[in-house]
Formats: sequence, C-alpha cells, structure tokens
Amino acid sequence: MKIKPLFERVVLESIKEENKSSTIILPDANLEKSQIAIVKEIGTGGNIDGEKIVFQVDIGDKVIYNKFSGHEISIDGKTYIIISQNDILGIIKEK
Amino acid sequence: MKIKPLFERVVLESIKEENKSSTIILPDANLEKSQIAIVKEIGTGGNIDGEKIVFQVDIGDKVIYNKFSGHEISIDGKTYIIISQNDILGIIKEK
Amino acid sequence: MKIKPLFERVVLESIKEENKSSTIILPDANLEKSQIAIVKEIGTGGNIDGEKIVFQVDIGDKVIYNKFSGHEISIDGKTYIIISQNDILGIIKEK
Amino acid sequence: MKIKPLFERVVLESIKEENKSSTIILPDANLEKSQIAIVKEIGTGGNIDGEKIVFQVDIGDKVIYNKFSGHEISIDGKTYIIISQNDILGIIKEK
Amino acid sequence: MKIKPLFERVVLESIKEENKSSTIILPDANLEKSQIAIVKEIGTGGNIDGEKIVFQVDIGDKVIYNKFSGHEISIDGKTYIIISQNDILGIIKEK
Amino acid sequence: MKIKPLFERVVLESIKEENKSSTIILPDANLEKSQIAIVKEIGTGGNIDGEKIVFQVDIGDKVIYNKFSGHEISIDGKTYIIISQNDILGIIKEK
Amino acid sequence: MKIKPLFERVVLESIKEENKSSTIILPDANLEKSQIAIVKEIGTGGNIDGEKIVFQVDIGDKVIYNKFSGHEISIDGKTYIIISQNDILGIIKEK
Repeated sequence: MKIKPLFERVVLESIKEENKSSTIILPDANLEKSQIAIVKEIGTGGNIDGEKIVFQVDIGDKVIYNKFSGHEISIDGKTYIIISQNDILGIIKEK
Repeated sequence: MKIKPLFERVVLESIKEENKSSTIILPDANLEKSQIAIVKEIGTGGNIDGEKIVFQVDIGDKVIYNKFSGHEISIDGKTYIIISQNDILGIIKEK
Repeated sequence: MKIKPLFERVVLESIKEENKSSTIILPDANLEKSQIAIVKEIGTGGNIDGEKIVFQVDIGDKVIYNKFSGHEISIDGKTYIIISQNDILGIIKEK
Repeated sequence: MKIKPLFERVVLESIKEENKSSTIILPDANLEKSQIAIVKEIGTGGNIDGEKIVFQVDIGDKVIYNKFSGHEISIDGKTYIIISQNDILGIIKEK
Repeated sequence: MKIKPLFERVVLESIKEENKSSTIILPDANLEKSQIAIVKEIGTGGNIDGEKIVFQVDIGDKVIYNKFSGHEISIDGKTYIIISQNDILGIIKEK
Repeated sequence: MKIKPLFERVVLESIKEENKSSTIILPDANLEKSQIAIVKEIGTGGNIDGEKIVFQVDIGDKVIYNKFSGHEISIDGKTYIIISQNDILGIIKEK
Repeated sequence: MKIKPLFERVVLESIKEENKSSTIILPDANLEKSQIAIVKEIGTGGNIDGEKIVFQVDIGDKVIYNKFSGHEISIDGKTYIIISQNDILGIIKEK
C-alpha cells in the first residue's frame, strides 16, 4: 500500500539522525519546528495558479522540513508526512 | 438522490479502514485532521481565477483528506463529505 | 416584490426537507453550517477580477449551501438567502 | 451640498420600509447586518487592479446592503452611507 | 516647509465644518471613523502592482476620509494627514 | 562600514528635528508611529512580483516614515533604519 | 555534510560581530529581531508565482537578517539559518 500525493505535495518518511561522525541538532527554540526525513513519493504535479509545478526534490533525498506543516500518518508501523514541497526547507547532501 | 458538487469540489464517502494485512493509523497529534474516504462524485469543473479546473481524482479512488476542511452531510444513513479537491492530500494505492 | 442579486450572488429560498423515502441529515458537528434551499434568482453576472462570471446553478435547483455565508432576509413570510454562488456546495439531484 | 464617492463607491440614503402590502423583515440573526436604502450617487469609476469599474446600480434603485460595510454620515438631517458597490447584495424590484 | 507624499498618497488638512446653512454630522457609531479635510498635496504617482496611479482628487477638494487610515502630523500648528487616496471616501461638492 | 539594502529597501538615519522657524510635531495618537529621517542608502532594486522597482527617494532626502515598519540598527553610535520604500510616507521639502 | 536550500532560500551561518574599530549594535526594541550572519549557501532557484528567482546575495556576503524568519539548525557545533532571501534586509560592506 502506498500514497500518491496530489499536486505539489510529497510524502516523507520521518527518520532519526544517527550519523556519529556528523550531527545535526535542532536547537531549543525551533526544536519542534524542523525535522529530517527521506522523500518517499513525489506528487502528481499539474498546475497551481496557472504555473506548472516543478519538483526540486527526488525520491530518496534526505530533507529538512517545517514540521508544523504537513499531515502525519502511520502505515504499517512507519510514520509518513504528506507535505507541500514548499514546506521543505532544503536537501541534506553528504560532502 | 445524489449530490453534484460545484466547481472544484468532490463528494467523498467516509470509510473505516479494516484491511488486516496493512493498517493506516492516524497518530495522536493529527488524529482528527486526516481521514480516509472514497471519491463518490466529481465536481462540475469550470474555471477558478481564469484557470481551468483539472481533476486528479476519479470516482472510486481511496483518498486521504484534511478533515477540518469540507462539509459533512448524511444521506440515507451514510456520511458524505463535500470538499475542495485541494484539501485531498493523496490517493491510496494498493501495491 | 423580488430581489435581483448583484454580480455572482444568487437568491435562495430555504426549505425543510420532508422527502420520506430518502433523508438528508446534517450531522451534529456541522448542523448549523450546511442547509438545503431552492435557487430563486440568479445574479446580474459581469466580471470579477477580469474573469466573466459563469452560473452553474439555475432557478429551481435544489442546493446545499454553507449557512455561515450569505445574508438572510424575510419577505412576505418566506426566508430568503442572498449568497455568493461560490458558497453553494452542490446541487441535489433526484436519481 | 452633495458627496461624489470615489472609484467603485456609491452613496445610499437609508430608508425605513413602510410598504403595507409587502414587507421585508430582516430576521434576528442578521438584524443589524442587512439594510435597505436608495442609491443617491454613483462613484467616479476608473480602474481597480487594472479592471474597469462597471456600475450595476443606478441612482434611484432600492437596494439591500451589508450594513457592517460602508461609512454612515448625516447631512441636513438625513442619513447617508458611502459604500463599495460590492457590499450591495441586490436590487429590490417591485413586481 | 511642505510634504510631498509618495506614490498614491495625498496630504490632507483637517478642517472643522462650520457651514451654518448645511451641516454634516458624523453619527455616533462612526464618529471617530470619518472626517472632513481639504486636499493639500497630491502624491508622486507612479505604478502600484503594474498599474499606473490615477488621482481622482485635486488640491483644494473638500473630502471625507476614513480616519483610522493615514498618519497625522502637525506642522506650524496645523494638523495634516498623509493618507492613501483609496481611503478617501468621496468629494464634497457645494450644490 | 555601510549597509546596502536588498530589493526595495532603503537605509534611513534617524534625526531629531531642530528647525526653530518651522516645527513638525507628531501628535499624541500617532506619536510613536511617524518619524523623520534622512535617506542614507538606496536598495539594490530588481523586480518584485514581476514589476521593476522604481525608487522615488534619493540619498539625502528628508522623509517621514512609518516607525512600526522597518528594522533599527546602531552603527558607530548612529541609529539607522532599514525599511521598505513603501513605508516612507512622504518627502519633506523646504519651501 | 551540507544543506542545499530549495527555491529562494539561502543558508546563513550566524556570527558574533567582534570588529573593534566599528561596531554594529542592535538596539533594545529590535534586539531579538535583527542579526548578522554570513551567507553559506544559495538556493536552487527556479520560479515563484511565474517569476524567475534572482539572488542578490552571494556566498561569503555578510548580511543583516530578520531573526524571526527562518529556521535555525545546528550542524557539527555551528548554528545555521535557512531563510528566504526576502528576509535578508541588507548586505554589510566594509568601506
């Protein structure tokens, strides 16, 4: 079973960062606002306000997103987030 | 008796997920925000803000939607939701 | 005496649904939000934001509307609602 | 002395409906929201957001308007309302 | 010393209406919202949102304006208001 | 050290008006809203919403601005304000 | 490990200003609103609302930004801010 998000949305799978050599810590003030996840599914695309949706993230990308946006659901014991691409802040790239 | 929704709206029929082999659980924080339903009717379409409405869902699709949007009504003992397509988060596809 | 609504508005006449064979019940949570009415008059049309107004409802249509929108008035003992077409959720069609 | 309203505004003169054979009653919930008035003056027109203003009301029309919009002023003992045409709900026509 | 307002703004000089033969009274509910003033200076014009600013008031016009908009300043003992033309409700014309 | 503001912003240097022959007094109600300053730097320009930014103020102009907008910073003991040109109400010109 | 921000966002590295010969002090009222940082990464660009994103800041620029915007994260003991370019107030240039 999988979810195909509509329009500009993507599906993220929440992860807990465990990389020992390099750590990302979300500080107190924004602790609950930013989170890290893996892109699992890209939306159907199409147009919003007459402008074609362009995806800048790909399946497998590790991203930081604004936690207060999006909808969490749980399928088969894993937590997923359906979120607008615009609420993804950036892509985390290993050097 | 049936309802034909106007413009970009669709009619959903609320369902209770009972698939044993795979479960979707809506976690606490968003328990009342997301729900699963079947698309029963597509809107009349037309234009909004000069842009033609394109439906990305079809009658029979199983979808996740934002419960806080839409209007619930009950006809002949069943619960329906009239909702803007934009408040449908994604389509659930069986693998 | 009658009312010709301006632009995209329509005039509705509120009805109490009394069809025995099929019932529409508005559930508790949205009891005061959705209501059923008959379209009595179509607006003058024209343009809004440079886009021509297109009416998707006709005089005589039975519709569900968002009660919190619109203005109620009473003429000769009947209750009418002046409402934007966009606050009409859908048209009720007998099968 | 008279007032020429700017752009899409019109000047209304508030009236008390006294027609015996047909009455318009504004019900409790919206008692203070809708009122009846006569159009006394049409605005200067021009453009708003690049779109030419078109007046759908004329001097002498009896209209229903949204009382919470507009500005009331009193000249020579009469009450006038300067209001955007868009806050006029409809024109009352005698059959 | 004078003030040249930017873009669509104008400078008004607040007046106290003292015409005996005809009086404008601002009623209780809107007593602090509407006021009468003389246009003292027209803005620099230019474009807003890609649309050329057109002034519909002239220096010397007596106008009614929405008091809650605009900024009051006092120069050489007189009170001036810098206000967007759009917050001027209408021009007062002597018959 | 100086600051080059981005897009439509400008840098103002706050001044205390000390001209004896002519005084500008900001009245009570708006005492903290309007202030006088000298334009010290013009923004980088470019486009906002597809429209080219045009500056109507110049370095050296004495302006009135909306104090509640903008960001104050202090460099080498002087107070500067980075503010959108649109929050500058007008230019003060000596007769 | 680094972060590539999406669309019009940039990554800033927060700094503490220690230049002895010239100091920037953020005054009380806005103490927590404005901060100084170095641009570490430019966004992916693309279009927003049909308009191409143009970056006016470069990697290495020292900038003042609106602290209440943006998301702070901490990587390897350093504090970074992912922020829309539009929330950068200006570029600090050494004379």
